[in-house]
Amino acid sequence: MRILVCNDDGISARGLRALVEVAQEFGQVFVVAPDKPQSGMGHAISIGVPLRLYPSSIFGSSIPAWACSGTPADCVKLATGVLGLRPDLLLSGINHGANFSISVFYSGTLSAAIEGAFEGIPSVGFSLLNYSMEADFSAAQAIVREVLLMYLAHPFPPHVPLNVNIPDLPLSEIRGLRLTRQARGRFIEQFEKRIDPYGEPYYWMVGRFESQDTASDTDIWALEKGYVSICPLLIDLTNHSFLQHWEAVQR
Amino acid sequence: MRILVCNDDGISARGLRALVEVAQEFGQVFVVAPDKPQSGMGHAISIGVPLRLYPSSIFGSSIPAWACSGTPADCVKLATGVLGLRPDLLLSGINHGANFSISVFYSGTLSAAIEGAFEGIPSVGFSLLNYSMEADFSAAQAIVREVLLMYLAHPFPPHVPLNVNIPDLPLSEIRGLRLTRQARGRFIEQFEKRIDPYGEPYYWMVGRFESQDTASDTDIWALEKGYVSICPLLIDLTNHSFLQHWEAVQR
Repeated sequence: MRILVCNDDGISARGLRALVEVAQEFGQVFVVAPDKPQSGMGHAISIGVPLRLYPSSIFGSSIPAWACSGTPADCVKLATGVLGLRPDLLLSGINHGANFSISVFYSGTLSAAIEGAFEGIPSVGFSLLNYSMEADFSAAQAIVREVLLMYLAHPFPPHVPLNVNIPDLPLSEIRGLRLTRQARGRFIEQFEKRIDPYGEPYYWMVGRFESQDTASDTDIWALEKGYVSICPLLIDLTNHSFLQHWEAVQR
Repeated sequence: MRILVCNDDGISARGLRALVEVAQEFGQVFVVAPDKPQSGMGHAISIGVPLRLYPSSIFGSSIPAWACSGTPADCVKLATGVLGLRPDLLLSGINHGANFSISVFYSGTLSAAIEGAFEGIPSVGFSLLNYSMEADFSAAQAIVREVLLMYLAHPFPPHVPLNVNIPDLPLSEIRGLRLTRQARGRFIEQFEKRIDPYGEPYYWMVGRFESQDTASDTDIWALEKGYVSICPLLIDLTNHSFLQHWEAVQR
């Protein structure tokens, strides 16, 4: 099995290395990852900008790797379009930080998995609920292994990327895997205003997330209770139920 | 009615001015737009980077406007979080170019509308099927007016952003408005390799879109037949039908 591993924290991130180590147990691994952190890049692609792709020996001689000057979505496009890699599986992460609720839209980690799903490649994004660049990924590695064994034992229809979030707990305290839906929530937009040395204002985004959903089938609920959250995603953004509603109204 | 107008082509784009002109007929307009083109930025936000917000007189004294150093999604966050604008309606565009099928994921124009929907603000993204910065928006302005009259006459539930694509035709040749769904399709990933003056390779993305959907209820079908496509979007990316399928399998 050929496995493409991507991320959004950049090629030198510990979370990427942790994912590569587990992926190796399942097949031949290739890495194409951004040459710098790309958190919050959403599904951005580089339009009107040439892209660079540098071979890297960071994972040793048995794991071909490339650093890319673009976004996570660019990495997947370059892997297929320039390197000619057609993976059987695409793994993204392990992200340093959570990707639940509407964070899915902002996440570079998930954009790589969604980009894989566009191509019909089974794709999974992994995130650990710890934002530190020095986070301990040992429990997360055991979870990635468990999720992949389950995923590969129950082949999925293509075009369904999975969003896997892992609580930041010792393995013995993780209660198991849960299928979830994206919780409703929002970011309270707050900005800290500062004045630069030239007297001009600038703003740091310091918003915080607010859940608007207390049900027990959501990603947030599962993570708060110590479960791993596995949420299948869509690549068709049509609001079909609203379409039906509107068509009924118009008749 | 307070109307926030955003875009992704930047504050000086003709499409933004065309949208502002029509929006003025419906209420008090405020503009917060990127200070440079942000096409293809998807739902990127600026993390770890301070943001600038410059007042602009580009639309005259009756229309307050700000140029923002960040992405389209940042513009919406700054409008609410720094400027304290709580619009009754958010309009994004008019984009110079199409946003159909999976382009929704890559689109900066729609990220602003989706960001508005996160906040429960009725939000519409408009795109004209002409990529030229010198495109003629006169027919598109008449369509924006028609869509807004319909939209305001039939109040929608919040959290449903609309994706409106307008064919690049004279008004007399536009056949009307159609409710659509996102067509299935993909980008054929192709890159043009060049060598820089220092002997190093770089790559231009030159992929092309391929429709995988011939049904007559899609955005692509409507546009090819000369209709305006109106596609309601989701902000819950959970694949609910897959969740049900998987839960049934596991029992």
